[in-house]
Amino acid sequence: MNAVCKRDILIGIVGGKGRMGNWFFRFLTDAGYQVLVSDMGTELSSEDLARRCHVVIVSVPMEAFSSVIGRIGPLMPKDAFLTDLCSLKAVQVQEMLQNTVCSVAGSHPLFGPAEDSINGRRVALCPGRGNEWFEWWRSLLESRGACVHCTDAASHDRAMAWVQALNHFILISLGKAVFDQGLDMEELVFLSTPSFSKQMEIVARLFYQDPQLYATIQMANPFAANVLHNFLGVCDKLHEAVLRTDRDAFVELFRSAQAAGKTYMDTVGKQTL
Amino acid sequence: MNAVCKRDILIGIVGGKGRMGNWFFRFLTDAGYQVLVSDMGTELSSEDLARRCHVVIVSVPMEAFSSVIGRIGPLMPKDAFLTDLCSLKAVQVQEMLQNTVCSVAGSHPLFGPAEDSINGRRVALCPGRGNEWFEWWRSLLESRGACVHCTDAASHDRAMAWVQALNHFILISLGKAVFDQGLDMEELVFLSTPSFSKQMEIVARLFYQDPQLYATIQMANPFAANVLHNFLGVCDKLHEAVLRTDRDAFVELFRSAQAAGKTYMDTVGKQTL
Repeated sequence: MNAVCKRDILIGIVGGKGRMGNWFFRFLTDAGYQVLVSDMGTELSSEDLARRCHVVIVSVPMEAFSSVIGRIGPLMPKDAFLTDLCSLKAVQVQEMLQNTVCSVAGSHPLFGPAEDSINGRRVALCPGRGNEWFEWWRSLLESRGACVHCTDAASHDRAMAWVQALNHFILISLGKAVFDQGLDMEELVFLSTPSFSKQMEIVARLFYQDPQLYATIQMANPFAANVLHNFLGVCDKLHEAVLRTDRDAFVELFRSAQAAGKTYMDTVGKQTL
Repeated sequence: MNAVCKRDILIGIVGGKGRMGNWFFRFLTDAGYQVLVSDMGTELSSEDLARRCHVVIVSVPMEAFSSVIGRIGPLMPKDAFLTDLCSLKAVQVQEMLQNTVCSVAGSHPLFGPAEDSINGRRVALCPGRGNEWFEWWRSLLESRGACVHCTDAASHDRAMAWVQALNHFILISLGKAVFDQGLDMEELVFLSTPSFSKQMEIVARLFYQDPQLYATIQMANPFAANVLHNFLGVCDKLHEAVLRTDRDAFVELFRSAQAAGKTYMDTVGKQTL
């Protein structure tokens, strides 16, 4: 990392015309950087972008990631920095390390392109190779208000099996079950408790999401299968307790859920102090 | 309904020392009514309360409901009004009608005792017998800002199989699965998306709820078994699509969930216009 002044750092975004790529284009431009963009149909190719930029951010669908990194990684100079925005990190960081000699880190913005600002939003960073660019990238995100969490790629993916894979699984199943029943929606809304309203508000956020990305999040996370299996096992146990009208078994399951929710919110409270 | 002036209407709450009963005691006192209360340990018995009051609100655990109605229903004068606050309505309205000759309605406040005010909160009312007291009760709730929805008891219970039984089922299963894994909660919170954070906030609301009430909501709703069965069927279908990495099947399920979420929120929008 020889460049020290903002205007000396040229940043390139591969996939910069996509929703998340464009979000980061605006973010970095606002932060005072020069930003180049390549995408399908741009005059500038990803290869030329990779040769010219000090920093390259890859924002492409996860299905295309390997092929993009295979093409641009080898073109990047040793003193450059390569990072990505994928929702998974173990395979992705490994592929970046294998295909380039420059500095590498994995980035996962834990928010979507519908957010106005990075302020207060979370970003996970997974170190790959090199400290200087990593610290530059972390400081840049933090200087604009992001809450950055550094973790290793496997821990990240393990957490994402809960935060994304299982969470999406539940929301899709609930939404699809509601859809199938052709319920009287007027009546359902009128009779909603605050808890159910909030649940359906989260389901409704799916409307702004890309089904292909969501498919990849379910199918490509190596920890997801186990988490889903455990969740469905708990569903079966709870279902049996209800069918047997076994109130004691029900209350025991309920108390564990209460404890998990309380611990989560207590931890949120500690982190926002 | 002979009494016309507020101070002439004496209201009694059976179970008025419980959390919801006490909430309605404060609500009705604030609204300018005289309110008597009976509960375990009060000098005033539920029987005496039923003989003396123009309006009796029964706020007892659903397991105790039948026995309470069986004792107080027959004591109520013909020109009085009997209502309840149970989370289910079909059996409850029927039992009130069978045990008294006075006016009857079923009430289900779609909120818990943690709410500060009834303003903007929903209340379902199911007609039983008599119009005058029903209209008085509805007007009283609406005059304090409640959104009242009148429906028949079976439709109410059918909607509650979704709004309460299935919703709680999902929240308990998620909370219990998180609990079982002994996850690093600091890391899980740091790596939470807005969607997962909101989901865990809803799980955390269980902390303030009564497990016995939640057990009854699961076990006593005649429509719940079918709704749970359908939901678990969708879970299996989605799980299979993920295991087979069948992206087309996944996307089809995803699109239905998107449609359900969108329709729900559009309906919320129309109702709040």
